Amino acid sequence: MPVNYVTPEPESLFPVAGIRLGVAEANIRKAGRKDLTLIEIAPGATVAGVFTQNRFCAAPVQVCRERLSHHPDGIRALVINTGNANAGTGEAGLQAALKSCVATGELLGTSADAVLPFSTGVIHELLPVERLIAGLPAARANLAENNWFAAAHAIMTTDTVAKAASKQCSVAGKTLTVTGISKGAGMIRPNMATMLGFIATDAAIAPALLAPLVKEVADQSFNCVTVDGDTSTNDSFILMASGKGALSFVSGEEPGWMDTKAALMEVALQLAQAIVRDGEGASKFITIAVEGGNTREECRKVAYAVAHSPLVKTAFFASDPNLGRILAAIGYAGIDDLSVEGVKVWLEAAGESVLVSERGGRATAYREADGSRLMQSAEITVRIHLGRGEAAATVYTCDLSHDYVSINADYRS
Amino acid sequence: MPVNYVTPEPESLFPVAGIRLGVAEANIRKAGRKDLTLIEIAPGATVAGVFTQNRFCAAPVQVCRERLSHHPDGIRALVINTGNANAGTGEAGLQAALKSCVATGELLGTSADAVLPFSTGVIHELLPVERLIAGLPAARANLAENNWFAAAHAIMTTDTVAKAASKQCSVAGKTLTVTGISKGAGMIRPNMATMLGFIATDAAIAPALLAPLVKEVADQSFNCVTVDGDTSTNDSFILMASGKGALSFVSGEEPGWMDTKAALMEVALQLAQAIVRDGEGASKFITIAVEGGNTREECRKVAYAVAHSPLVKTAFFASDPNLGRILAAIGYAGIDDLSVEGVKVWLEAAGESVLVSERGGRATAYREADGSRLMQSAEITVRIHLGRGEAAATVYTCDLSHDYVSINADYRS
Repeated sequence: MPVNYVTPEPESLFPVAGIRLGVAEANIRKAGRKDLTLIEIAPGATVAGVFTQNRFCAAPVQVCRERLSHHPDGIRALVINTGNANAGTGEAGLQAALKSCVATGELLGTSADAVLPFSTGVIHELLPVERLIAGLPAARANLAENNWFAAAHAIMTTDTVAKAASKQCSVAGKTLTVTGISKGAGMIRPNMATMLGFIATDAAIAPALLAPLVKEVADQSFNCVTVDGDTSTNDSFILMASGKGALSFVSGEEPGWMDTKAALMEVALQLAQAIVRDGEGASKFITIAVEGGNTREECRKVAYAVAHSPLVKTAFFASDPNLGRILAAIGYAGIDDLSVEGVKVWLEAAGESVLVSERGGRATAYREADGSRLMQSAEITVRIHLGRGEAAATVYTCDLSHDYVSINADYRS
Repeated sequence: MPVNYVTPEPESLFPVAGIRLGVAEANIRKAGRKDLTLIEIAPGATVAGVFTQNRFCAAPVQVCRERLSHHPDGIRALVINTGNANAGTGEAGLQAALKSCVATGELLGTSADAVLPFSTGVIHELLPVERLIAGLPAARANLAENNWFAAAHAIMTTDTVAKAASKQCSVAGKTLTVTGISKGAGMIRPNMATMLGFIATDAAIAPALLAPLVKEVADQSFNCVTVDGDTSTNDSFILMASGKGALSFVSGEEPGWMDTKAALMEVALQLAQAIVRDGEGASKFITIAVEGGNTREECRKVAYAVAHSPLVKTAFFASDPNLGRILAAIGYAGIDDLSVEGVKVWLEAAGESVLVSERGGRATAYREADGSRLMQSAEITVRIHLGRGEAAATVYTCDLSHDYVSINADYRS
C-alpha cells in the first residue's frame, strides 16, 4: 500500500494535443498483462531527456542518448516495454533495441532514428524482441490522446499503483496542459534521471530551451528521491513539448515561461514523490531537509547518508525514535570539517516540530515521548541544520521494512 | 546463528604476559549481564589505536585520540562498557568519559591520563557513569591474564556470539603470542577502525613502529568488512604490545618483524571476519574480490557498492542468482570512465568458479542452473575483474535478511 498516494482518476488526466498513447500485451515476461506502450508524437514537437549515469546503462538508454543528441526535434515515437530491462545484455541487447525501433518506425511510417526505446524489468536477460515486435500492431491500434491512464498501468513493474499527474492552468492568459506518468519502486536512487518518467505539455518549447529544462526539472524532482540507493541501469526521464497548444517559447523571455516551468516542475515532483510513496515495502514517506550547508552538494551528501542508512530506515519502520542513528549518518556523510557543535536536528510531523539534538548532544527540552509520538506519523520530516552556511537540499525517501526484503528476495520467482 | 563461526574454547585463547582482564556487572543498560571490562596493561607496554572517522564520534573516542597522541607508551588501562555508546551526548558525555578514567586511575594507582575509555551501545543517551564507577572494584577483583574469553563476552551488544582469536607461533626461534577480541554486528562499515577490537601481543614494539602498524593492520582487516554501510560513532581498534615476551622490535629491521606482522594480521582478519559472520541477520558470508583496477581505491569503491546494495544483499539472502544487480552496482560505483566491455564477473563457492558476465552481457557459457547451485552456499565469493589495471581490493560482507530488519526495528525495545 503506497503512503498517501492513489492513482488519479482517468478523467483527471488531461490529454495533451499531439500526443497519442497505445498499450498492448506482448507477453514479454508474464502473460495476461499489458507490457508494451507506444507513444506517438506529432510532427513539430520537441523532445529532450536525461538518463542514468550508471556505467552499465541499458541498451535502450544508449540508443536514446545517441538519437536525442542528433535529432532533438525529430523524435516521433517512444516504444516502452516492461518485464525486461535489456541491460547487461551486451551487443545482442543493443541489436534488439535497434530492431524494436526499426519495427516501430515501419509501422508508423517514420524512420527508425525517430523512435526512442525504453525497457524496464529484470537485468542481464536478453530482450525477447520478436514478441515485442509482434505486439506493436495492437499497441498502434490502441493509440489515443486520452490513454494516459492505461499507459501509466502498462509501464509498471513492482509498482503497486500506477503513477500519473496532470495539470491544466492558465498561463499568460492562455491554457497550458501538462500530463505525465512514471514507474519505479525499487532500485531507486536516480542519478540525473529516474526509472521511467514521461511528461508531455502542449506548449511549444524550442530544443535549446528544452534540453536545459529537462535537466533542471529532473534535478528538483526525480533526482531528489531514493528508495534503496541502487541507481538503476535504465533511468530515463523524457519531456515532450507538442506545440499544439496556445503557448510557445523560443528564448524563455516570453510571458508565461516561469509559470510553465513551475507547472512542469509540479507534475514532475508529484510523479517523483509517488515513486517513493510506492517504494518497495514503504510504510512511511520521509522528507530529509538539510539546511545551513556551505554548498547544495554537501547538503545532498548529508540528506542521502541519512536517507540510505538501513539503521535510520528500520527505526522509522519501527516508529522508534532511536535518533542517534541520524547523528551517526550525518557524521559519516563525508563532510570532513563538520563541527558537530553547530548541528541541529528537528523531527517534524502533523504540523509539530521538535528539536531533538543540538551542541553535539540531546536537546535539553527534548522528551522521548515527543519523539515517539511524531515517529508514529506516516509522513515525517527530518530537518537538519548544519550551521555552516546558506545552502539547502531536500531528499525524499521511505522506511526499510520486512516487505522490502520479501519483495526483493522473491523478485524473479 | 553466525555463518561458520564459533567462539574459540577458553583454553585456546593464549594469555598475553603483562595483560590482565576483568569483567563485572554494572547494570548500565540491562541487569544480569556483564557489561564492564577492565584491561590492565603492565608498565613498559606500548599501545596504539585507530578510531572512527565519523564526525559525530563518541566522547570516549575523543578522549582516546587525545591521550594516545600524547602518551603512546604511558597507557596502563582500558575501561570498556557496553549498553551505552556515549555518542551524540555533547559536553556532558565528555565529562562522563573523563570521570570514568579518573575513577579507574584511582583504583589502579595510575593517573587518569593513563586510562583509555571505550563505550558501545545505544547512541544519544547519557552514560550512567556512576553505575559504571560502582562496578569498577568488581572488575578489578576479577583481573587475570587468562580472562580473554570472559572479556569477549562482556563487550558484546547485538552480537550473538563472542568473538576472539589467538595464535602462538615461533618467530625467529622465539615464541610469539597474539590474542584479541572484537565485537560488532550492526552499524558496521568501519572507516579506519572497527566497532571495538582489542589485540595484544607479548612482543615489545616501539611506539614509532606500533602507530603505523595499527593502521596497516586495520586497513587489511577491520577496514575491509561491512554489514550495513553504517559507519559507527564508536569504532575503535587498539593494539597492545606488552613487551613481556621474547621478541623486541625497535626499527622493524630485526629478525621476525614480518612474521610478527603476519601473525597480528591473521588474528585481526579473523576478528574482523567474525563480525561479518555474526552480522545482524546474516545467513551468508560473502567475499567481494575486485581485481584489475587502476587503483586500490577504485577497487574498494566497486567492492563496497556491491557489498552495500540492498538488492544484491537480498538476492543472496534468497539464493537467487539475479546477478544483473551486481552489474548495476558496479555501474554506479563511481568509476566515470569504466568500460563495461572489459568487466568480467565470476561467482565462486565450494571450490567451483563460474564466469557469469563478460563484454557487457551474460557470458556465453553461463547457465542459470550453475548460478542457482552456487548461490545456495553459505560462503560465496563474487570475483570482479575490471580489466583496467593491476590493483585489487577485497571486502567481506553478509546478506540482508528479514532478521536484519527485525533486529534493528526492535533494537531498543
